[in-house]
Amino acid sequence: MMRFVALGALLASAVAMPVSAGVRDYRIANEHKILGEFVDLLAIPNVATDTPNIRRNAQALMAMMEKRGLSPRLLEGADSTTPPIVYGEWKVPGAKKTIVLYAHYDGQPTVPAKWTASPPWQPTLRTRAIEAGGTVLPIPRADQKIDPEWRLYARSTSDDKLGVIAVLTAIDALKAEKRLPAMNVKIVFEGEEEAGSPHLGEILARNKPLLASDGWIIFDGPVHQSGRRQVVFGVRGVTGIDITAYGARRPLHSGHYGNWSPNPAMMLSRLLASMKDDKGRVLVKGFYDDDAPVGAAERAAIAAAPDSDAAIRKELGIAASEGGDGLLDALMRTSLNVDGLMSADVGANARNVIPATATASLDMRLAKGADEAKQIDKVIAHIKAQGFHVTEAEPTDEERARYPAIVRVTRRVGGYNAVRTPMDAPLGRATVAALSALEDQPAIALPTSGGSLPLFMIEQNFPVPLLSVGSANYDNNQHAEDENVRIQNLWNSIETVAAIMTMKI
Amino acid sequence: MMRFVALGALLASAVAMPVSAGVRDYRIANEHKILGEFVDLLAIPNVATDTPNIRRNAQALMAMMEKRGLSPRLLEGADSTTPPIVYGEWKVPGAKKTIVLYAHYDGQPTVPAKWTASPPWQPTLRTRAIEAGGTVLPIPRADQKIDPEWRLYARSTSDDKLGVIAVLTAIDALKAEKRLPAMNVKIVFEGEEEAGSPHLGEILARNKPLLASDGWIIFDGPVHQSGRRQVVFGVRGVTGIDITAYGARRPLHSGHYGNWSPNPAMMLSRLLASMKDDKGRVLVKGFYDDDAPVGAAERAAIAAAPDSDAAIRKELGIAASEGGDGLLDALMRTSLNVDGLMSADVGANARNVIPATATASLDMRLAKGADEAKQIDKVIAHIKAQGFHVTEAEPTDEERARYPAIVRVTRRVGGYNAVRTPMDAPLGRATVAALSALEDQPAIALPTSGGSLPLFMIEQNFPVPLLSVGSANYDNNQHAEDENVRIQNLWNSIETVAAIMTMKI
Repeated sequence: MMRFVALGALLASAVAMPVSAGVRDYRIANEHKILGEFVDLLAIPNVATDTPNIRRNAQALMAMMEKRGLSPRLLEGADSTTPPIVYGEWKVPGAKKTIVLYAHYDGQPTVPAKWTASPPWQPTLRTRAIEAGGTVLPIPRADQKIDPEWRLYARSTSDDKLGVIAVLTAIDALKAEKRLPAMNVKIVFEGEEEAGSPHLGEILARNKPLLASDGWIIFDGPVHQSGRRQVVFGVRGVTGIDITAYGARRPLHSGHYGNWSPNPAMMLSRLLASMKDDKGRVLVKGFYDDDAPVGAAERAAIAAAPDSDAAIRKELGIAASEGGDGLLDALMRTSLNVDGLMSADVGANARNVIPATATASLDMRLAKGADEAKQIDKVIAHIKAQGFHVTEAEPTDEERARYPAIVRVTRRVGGYNAVRTPMDAPLGRATVAALSALEDQPAIALPTSGGSLPLFMIEQNFPVPLLSVGSANYDNNQHAEDENVRIQNLWNSIETVAAIMTMKI
Repeated sequence: MMRFVALGALLASAVAMPVSAGVRDYRIANEHKILGEFVDLLAIPNVATDTPNIRRNAQALMAMMEKRGLSPRLLEGADSTTPPIVYGEWKVPGAKKTIVLYAHYDGQPTVPAKWTASPPWQPTLRTRAIEAGGTVLPIPRADQKIDPEWRLYARSTSDDKLGVIAVLTAIDALKAEKRLPAMNVKIVFEGEEEAGSPHLGEILARNKPLLASDGWIIFDGPVHQSGRRQVVFGVRGVTGIDITAYGARRPLHSGHYGNWSPNPAMMLSRLLASMKDDKGRVLVKGFYDDDAPVGAAERAAIAAAPDSDAAIRKELGIAASEGGDGLLDALMRTSLNVDGLMSADVGANARNVIPATATASLDMRLAKGADEAKQIDKVIAHIKAQGFHVTEAEPTDEERARYPAIVRVTRRVGGYNAVRTPMDAPLGRATVAALSALEDQPAIALPTSGGSLPLFMIEQNFPVPLLSVGSANYDNNQHAEDENVRIQNLWNSIETVAAIMTMKI
């Protein structure tokens, strides 16, 4: 903690900005309007593959930007099924510097039936989190006070329409104050981040002059578990595979064939179990070989960050971490995670069958240095080393006759590698200072997020500093059912964006 | 094969019965009517827990028996949610012996969306099996010939409304011939066999005088893979458990927590993998200790049975059996089979999360001697020996804080132990002889089925010989989606029942 305070003070001394009281006043006077605009946006379904609804989102964002005088336009991909970037800008006379503010308007796919009470695109207020016994509230009338501890539930309340609404509302607040940003502001709202941004690189490459800048700030992700603002200097890459093990051509009666015909659920379990030791260390050969070493500045930043591990373990209900080490240390490594398993049915729907197939989806979060295609190659080599025949399609009759153990491996489309901005980049120091000025304690600086954002495609097109700044409560159920945002985090996000827009770089 | 012929000839010489040409003539003249009655019965959903529809089935069966003069009645359990036995009888003046003919009218639960084209309770004819490219046919008009290679698709076409319709149609055929059975016939149609017959013992105990007999014939299951009729002298018992592994309280973002918060899908995979070696041998301590030794008569019967293993492997599309040995040998052991796996979602629905839970359903088919409760105890002891804390409920906060690895184990209700009738019992010899007289080759006699029937509850109440005789095509997708019966197997089942009703015992 001492070391952290020293680092924070150092960074905070670089630029000193006053808290923008005007932004807070604007928010307090307009809470119902802000919430209403957010709810309207959240009500539009936003899975990247749902083209008609993605277009409805883009049109809504165009109208929201138009109303604010941000000269919006759609930056399209090669074909009309690609979710467009919604672009806007606020040019400041005489400004020498330019910054890009990024958020994404698409959300993770979800199974509506798994949501508690309210479906994903029906924004619903609760008195607090569902896990804490929160009950449903109507959207408040203009004369009803909004409690900052309320939670708003819907897909993308946190990830990442929160970023969208924060940017647009911060602009409203500055305009209401008749205050200008300290630099030209360009806005990029992406529409397929949760699909792995398969067309982001292509769209950026096609719009290089338009998107030229001195740095990008990515508004996405949560604040620190302690509730403090944080600036993150890097992101892990991400990729993934689906693995399907094959038994007989069809599900079989477990009495007539059980323990004679091979069971793909058991085969898959054995394969997955072979991938990690009992300490959570990945046993795939060479798995960690490409991970960049953790440097001194990064180690110092990790040491300086508050240690929330015990509190998080308690909150999550886990007795120990998988590998026994700290969360921030674990995030510096490439990970291998089972996203899900599926084979026939379980519980009340289970039947006494040998399933015909068993599937696991795995993701890998890539440390700086690891390459997504190469990382998958390592896993495939491991699978083969376990005696499996690996196919990329349904096994043929010939393969079935020849190989006792067959898996199909499907590489996930749209993965990308990690990015890290040096921890002493001026844009980073300015941003940490601007956010430190907003609260009693300095903002936290971290070498990398555990999560992934498509910064790799940005870095390839624009070699400028890239930082990410999250605003969501960390218990927001990101990527899962019952995603939500705490209202105070929504309010804070507006001040965060305004502070960045008005900082000197 | 030589040994088999010798055994078959020995059994066939015990009683010689002519083929009942009259039964076949009756069927040929009434195919459309038989098929129509079967289709009507199959159209009533029949999952044991679906009380209203189970009652509709029972009422339909009452009406079908009433029409045939079988004095039907419902034998009820203690409460009205217990599926009743539908009982009927055909008393034969002067008959000294009595036989009980058993079938069950409930079917395995199923997920309708997984059925190809036609849902489970919408009986649909196809030109042949779906796997063989069969296409849908309308139910034939009275002037259209019925092809015996057609398949009828619906839940319970094979398991086990086939048994029901075979018994009732055989009675029609004998009555049309004005022929009497060789013994008093009692009919028991059970309504919760697929749920593990939790109330069968109770209902039988309450109706001991009514159900007194010299033996039971269970009409259920498939014919031999070779297509030949078979008489099976035993069944394996069955039980099962659900195992749920726990991670954090809620699904977590795999970037922010991946490889730090424990992954229950990986924990479950490691646990399942620990249960078997790479030859399919169960590693649970003492797992096979209670299996009764395979005696000389049983070994001889197995050796005499046709060896269909290579043909089955080819048909199922598997290169080798799990343990490398023969199917009939494998069926003499207690098995441990994964029925299904479920954790979050996979494939197109997968999200990059650490799932909150992962569940496996397992069944065990019990060899003679193994006790269902004790067998589960062995598995639970194994789970504990792997370092898991085992609960029977959702883990409490205290358990979560204390134990790094937690699984919940739920014992399946309604399991039961194996039964075997001695291979030289007179009822068995008579039945093998009666069925041998129906075809060019002798019927096959097997010491046990791999599958399970609630003979244990019957044996406890009625210490008489119990045999099972299957009529379904062995590729009927029993217990899975797309269950079906080949029409010729339906026709043959009628002659099978009639031959048994008219044999001397």
